[in-house]
Amino acid sequence: MDVSVTDEYLANNAEYAKTFKGPLPLPPSKHVAVVACMDARLDVYRILGLKDGEAHVIRNAGGVVTDDEIRSLAISQRLLGTREIILIHHTDCGMLTFTDDEFKRQIQEETGIKPEWAAEAFPDVEEDVRQSLRRIENSPFVTLHTSLRGFVFDVATGKLNEVTL
Amino acid sequence: MDVSVTDEYLANNAEYAKTFKGPLPLPPSKHVAVVACMDARLDVYRILGLKDGEAHVIRNAGGVVTDDEIRSLAISQRLLGTREIILIHHTDCGMLTFTDDEFKRQIQEETGIKPEWAAEAFPDVEEDVRQSLRRIENSPFVTLHTSLRGFVFDVATGKLNEVTL
Repeated sequence: MDVSVTDEYLANNAEYAKTFKGPLPLPPSKHVAVVACMDARLDVYRILGLKDGEAHVIRNAGGVVTDDEIRSLAISQRLLGTREIILIHHTDCGMLTFTDDEFKRQIQEETGIKPEWAAEAFPDVEEDVRQSLRRIENSPFVTLHTSLRGFVFDVATGKLNEVTL
Repeated sequence: MDVSVTDEYLANNAEYAKTFKGPLPLPPSKHVAVVACMDARLDVYRILGLKDGEAHVIRNAGGVVTDDEIRSLAISQRLLGTREIILIHHTDCGMLTFTDDEFKRQIQEETGIKPEWAAEAFPDVEEDVRQSLRRIENSPFVTLHTSLRGFVFDVATGKLNEVTL
C-alpha cells in the first residue's frame, strides 16, 4: 500500500502546529452550535467565517437530527452555554441518492445483519431541514436557544439559503 | 435582542460566496472520513490541511462512536467510497467534566424526563479514543477501511498525538 492519506494529513498537522496559538477557553465564545452534513465540500468554518473557539460544530451524514445530535446539543447548551442553533443541509447531497430500505437490504445481504438504526435518507433537502427543525423543537432536552434557523448550502455558489417552517 | 450571531455569520457567508469556486464532485476525493469532537477549538480542515471535497467530517460531543457515527461511516464507506478513518479527541474536553449520572439526573429534575440515551462522558481521553477504535472494529457495518487510527489533539500546541490500542 502507498503512503496513506492519513500520513499526508499528519504532515500537514505538523505545519499547522508551528504557527498555532493556544489554548483558547473551552466554552464557545459566540455561544453558537452548528449542525451540518459531513459532506466533504462543506468547510463549515469558512462558509460561516467561524474563528477558532467560537462555535460547536456537529456533523453527520445528511446533517439530520437523531438522538446523538440531541445528546450533543443538550451538552452544548446545558454545560457549555450555547444559545443559537444553525442547521446546514446542502444541494447535491448523497442522502438524496438512495432509500433506507435498499441500503439496509444491501447490508443485510452482504453481512447477514440488518442495521437496527434508520439510515435517514431523504428525497427532498428543504423538507429534511424542516424535519430537523421540528425534531429540535420537539425535544424536551434542547430548549435553551434564543435562535434556531435552518439553511441549504448551495455547492455550486457557496451561498446559504434559509428554509422556514 | 441584539443582532444575532447567526446574522453575523450569514454576512460572512455572503463574502465567502463571492470568491467560491464550485461545484466539486460528491464523493470525497481523498477517500477519508474523520470523526472528531464538536469542540469549538477544532478547526478540522486546518488541523489536517483538508481541502474542499477531500474528506467526510463527522463531529459530535466528545468525538465518540455511537449508532449515528456507525450510520454515517457506513454511508461514507459503502455509498461514497471512503477507505481511511481518522478519529480525533482532544485535551481539555468538556466530556471530562461531568458524569452521565449527574447530567441525566439534572435533566430529569428540571424537565421531568430522563434521557433514554447515554451522555457518553468519559474520565480519560486516551482511553476513550481506544473505546472509539474498538467500537468501529466491532461493527459489522463499517468494515471497508484500510486504515483506522486515533489521535488526541492538544489544544495548547495544535499537535495531534496518536493513541494506539
